[in-house]
Amino acid sequence: MLDAELIEKLKAKNKRTISKLITKVEASEGEEKELLDNIYKLGGNSYRIGITGPPGAGKSTLTNQLTKLLIAQGKTVGIIAVDPTSPFTGGALLGDRVRMTEIGLHENVYIRSMATRGSLGGLSKKAIDASDVLDAAGYDFIIFETVGVGQSELDIAKTSDTTVVVLVPESGDSIQAMKAGLMEIADFFVVNKSDRPGADSAVMALKSILQLNRQTDGDWRIEILQTVASQNQGVKEVLDEIFKHKNYLEESGALTGRRIRNNKIRVKNIVENELRIEMWNDMRENYLSNEAPKVVERALSPFILAESLIENYKSENG
Amino acid sequence: MLDAELIEKLKAKNKRTISKLITKVEASEGEEKELLDNIYKLGGNSYRIGITGPPGAGKSTLTNQLTKLLIAQGKTVGIIAVDPTSPFTGGALLGDRVRMTEIGLHENVYIRSMATRGSLGGLSKKAIDASDVLDAAGYDFIIFETVGVGQSELDIAKTSDTTVVVLVPESGDSIQAMKAGLMEIADFFVVNKSDRPGADSAVMALKSILQLNRQTDGDWRIEILQTVASQNQGVKEVLDEIFKHKNYLEESGALTGRRIRNNKIRVKNIVENELRIEMWNDMRENYLSNEAPKVVERALSPFILAESLIENYKSENG
Repeated sequence: MLDAELIEKLKAKNKRTISKLITKVEASEGEEKELLDNIYKLGGNSYRIGITGPPGAGKSTLTNQLTKLLIAQGKTVGIIAVDPTSPFTGGALLGDRVRMTEIGLHENVYIRSMATRGSLGGLSKKAIDASDVLDAAGYDFIIFETVGVGQSELDIAKTSDTTVVVLVPESGDSIQAMKAGLMEIADFFVVNKSDRPGADSAVMALKSILQLNRQTDGDWRIEILQTVASQNQGVKEVLDEIFKHKNYLEESGALTGRRIRNNKIRVKNIVENELRIEMWNDMRENYLSNEAPKVVERALSPFILAESLIENYKSENG
Repeated sequence: MLDAELIEKLKAKNKRTISKLITKVEASEGEEKELLDNIYKLGGNSYRIGITGPPGAGKSTLTNQLTKLLIAQGKTVGIIAVDPTSPFTGGALLGDRVRMTEIGLHENVYIRSMATRGSLGGLSKKAIDASDVLDAAGYDFIIFETVGVGQSELDIAKTSDTTVVVLVPESGDSIQAMKAGLMEIADFFVVNKSDRPGADSAVMALKSILQLNRQTDGDWRIEILQTVASQNQGVKEVLDEIFKHKNYLEESGALTGRRIRNNKIRVKNIVENELRIEMWNDMRENYLSNEAPKVVERALSPFILAESLIENYKSENG
């Protein structure tokens, strides 16, 4: 399945080979365990950076600028951009085109966009599986760029070694981001578009929320950086902060702990996804469809129906 | 468990009885099936309205105004306000206080706020279970007011008969909302704060997206209404649109189909929640914790570890 020639091409970062493998991984519905297993064991050397935040915060621009700095240092960078929502607007597609011209053609950069609607849980799983291909290929850095709107995007962020939450000054976005659960996952914040009015007060608001709420993560101190990514202002400092965090994790030994935690989340997601697929086979889907009208008529409660479905599932495995 | 006296108090909409029952429902971790089952069978007459949208769109204000109109018509209204994020800012708590003074003290209104962080899946389940208590009590209308930020909030919206998506003109919120999956669940849109600049262009943008993307839902035509809820402008029209949609569903027979669909989603959520709880007992949590370091060392892949956990779970039920 992964013969020596394919592995050699993969390790040489042959983009066509990488694309084909990711497509294979994306297409597999949990069946190709052997392939995934083999790919997984080839990796282990990439450092994973998550860049997340609300739509329109400038995550792509920041990612592009960071990537330019990294390749200038001779590093290799794989980017997985996840936007489950882009088919609505085409925004990501336009952004993709700009990005491909700017950095995507560089030999040390590989970019993959994922934008499948409708199966959020599946999408985060596929994005993480795809990152294994990049890891196996030996990219120094893997950047996950995700829209921070749902649990699934948070799951992707949680597989990163360093997670950067990008906000913008206006409209209380910083506050709203706190609300959406981005708070717990940030290793540091970037207030992008900081040339806009209200940037300083956004930073102040963020600081006071941080002081109120954040549990400490060892000795790591969560900073708030300001950038104007479109003009490349402050981007170098963001990269410095990423490296500072990387050094902190490595020197304190916290990196292993974090990766253990991240992998536990990943395994749980794989398990729950598989149980879900097994549970909702055609037979039980049909049973549910047949019984649901009784629930509407209040002749049957959803709780009792759920119980009989679970019993049926279990008896199958008995 | 639900004796005749308690049922009588419940049917009389005794607020203390309702609160106690909801608290009981909230506290139960899937165990109190009999209670939930009994409550469920008492209901069936409430019409469920979902009001969702991004934070800060003015959902609470609109809900309050709609409620005032409904009680002026002699209707009874139960409100379940879900904001998983409010502990960060206290915003919801402040809003709650205003709301209690405005409508919450009225004998025909019951308000329950739910704002538990950390267990989103659980929160949507609890909110829906709680609505069964209000349904059993016989409220004419149940309004779910939810922040449209995640899958879980969408799940709550999906249990409604009529779902209203509230947006604001500025900062491309309408577009962003499309992206966040609010699109598929809207029976109609409200652009609130329509006295702000950009309201008309926001409506135009929304219209073109709607024309491009929306599958028709029978003969129902999705409208975009404009309001300034804080000044009670356009609120009556929103209520008219809710009634128009209610009539449409009832006369076309689509209401039953929608409720069947909604209950299927609900049953699936209950099933998956129970499987999750069963799966992750202490023994398997420990096993996962013990094995996860091997995954980090690449001696074991997450896929193989997931497989052995599933095998263990199944053998337990064998």
